[in-house]
Amino acid sequence: MLYLIGIGLDKEDISTRALKAVKKCKEVYLEKYTCNFPYSDSELSRVLGKKVLAVNREFVENASELLEKAKKKDIALLVYGDPLIATTHLALLQEARKKKVRTEVIHNISVLNAITQTGLEAYKFGRVTSIPTWQDNYRPTSFYDILKENQKINAHTLFLLDIGLELEDAISYLVKVSTDRGEGAFTKKTPCIACSCLGTSKQKIKFATAEKLARLKLHKPISLIVPAHLHFVEEAYLKRFKF
Amino acid sequence: MLYLIGIGLDKEDISTRALKAVKKCKEVYLEKYTCNFPYSDSELSRVLGKKVLAVNREFVENASELLEKAKKKDIALLVYGDPLIATTHLALLQEARKKKVRTEVIHNISVLNAITQTGLEAYKFGRVTSIPTWQDNYRPTSFYDILKENQKINAHTLFLLDIGLELEDAISYLVKVSTDRGEGAFTKKTPCIACSCLGTSKQKIKFATAEKLARLKLHKPISLIVPAHLHFVEEAYLKRFKF
Repeated sequence: MLYLIGIGLDKEDISTRALKAVKKCKEVYLEKYTCNFPYSDSELSRVLGKKVLAVNREFVENASELLEKAKKKDIALLVYGDPLIATTHLALLQEARKKKVRTEVIHNISVLNAITQTGLEAYKFGRVTSIPTWQDNYRPTSFYDILKENQKINAHTLFLLDIGLELEDAISYLVKVSTDRGEGAFTKKTPCIACSCLGTSKQKIKFATAEKLARLKLHKPISLIVPAHLHFVEEAYLKRFKF
Repeated sequence: MLYLIGIGLDKEDISTRALKAVKKCKEVYLEKYTCNFPYSDSELSRVLGKKVLAVNREFVENASELLEKAKKKDIALLVYGDPLIATTHLALLQEARKKKVRTEVIHNISVLNAITQTGLEAYKFGRVTSIPTWQDNYRPTSFYDILKENQKINAHTLFLLDIGLELEDAISYLVKVSTDRGEGAFTKKTPCIACSCLGTSKQKIKFATAEKLARLKLHKPISLIVPAHLHFVEEAYLKRFKF
């Protein structure tokens, strides 16, 4: 049996159900390559009461070794956040099905849950997107298209920033694409919400113009929200994050 | 201190962090009026190691008694799913702030996490909406407008069905509004996904035309998804739910 287990955002987010599953497992793997981890492996081991083995992307994506093991014994693959939200493990679940390996998914909270701490209505968010780090020859702009689409239907936009990407750079990309296209979807004056380490004890939420937010030095992981038209309840709540 | 604690979807979804908080609390209240509860209070008490007191809407919304208590001692308010997603408790948090009562929010999974079990990409969902039970003089259609808006930007739409509302009725509302307006946004032939008891051990997912789904008898809570254009990975995964 393969347990695909979300461990949430902070070190004690793991559920009672997940802890029970981990106890049954002979081996507990930890997928660590998808985010800047906010706590150490040994802290996690302490909460789980079990040693965890960090694995790389290849081990997870080229799933044969993992599934061979899971055929013979109970093993767990721990994933930061929710196991089906950011890096969806659907391909792994499909492969397991083909090989007749039983699987169980145990969800946990992701940034999509924690953004409600901003006071923005969860039901008013449109499509979520991520901002990758631009390279010389690789400057995707699809995140800007998602913003424009969400704006069309008056929905908030959540941008997840790539590992290592600074808020200042993410904001400069948005301004650049908008300016290059001669559109006003995002300017230096756009009010935005920056979130740092959401869902952890280090969480910070800041509300200001893009220009002002770009000057902040925030711990990673960082997310950025461009709100749609604010409801007065949202506006009243957001005030506490203004600076 | 007031702990606002999400208990997730099934009875052992509660997190280690939440269990620690509950242990400190003198009184543990349970908000039970927002959904068809999938397990009993005593099952929950057993997991928590503490007696829970079910409270009504008035107790939570007219927060003065709750906040007076929280001023003097640690108390917990347990909420099904995530405490800031469906019934957002932002008004309660605002009121607590005014009265200088400390609060801590502990998130948990909601249906928004569990819908990823369908194989649909979380980032491709647009705005979420709910379908209320129609009364003689009260027939809101805003859920249909949200569908149309999401369709504009090629996003999946998740409908949460009101307590007590049958899938058959929800589908008939959608067909009726679409027909009345002379639009084809939703017809009997629209492929949809019906989800029953998502995130619990009784979970069922079914994929078929609206017409075919309407004939199913499903346990509540029920949600309905109208997918946008499917990616081939989504399509391959969804096959397992076809009937």
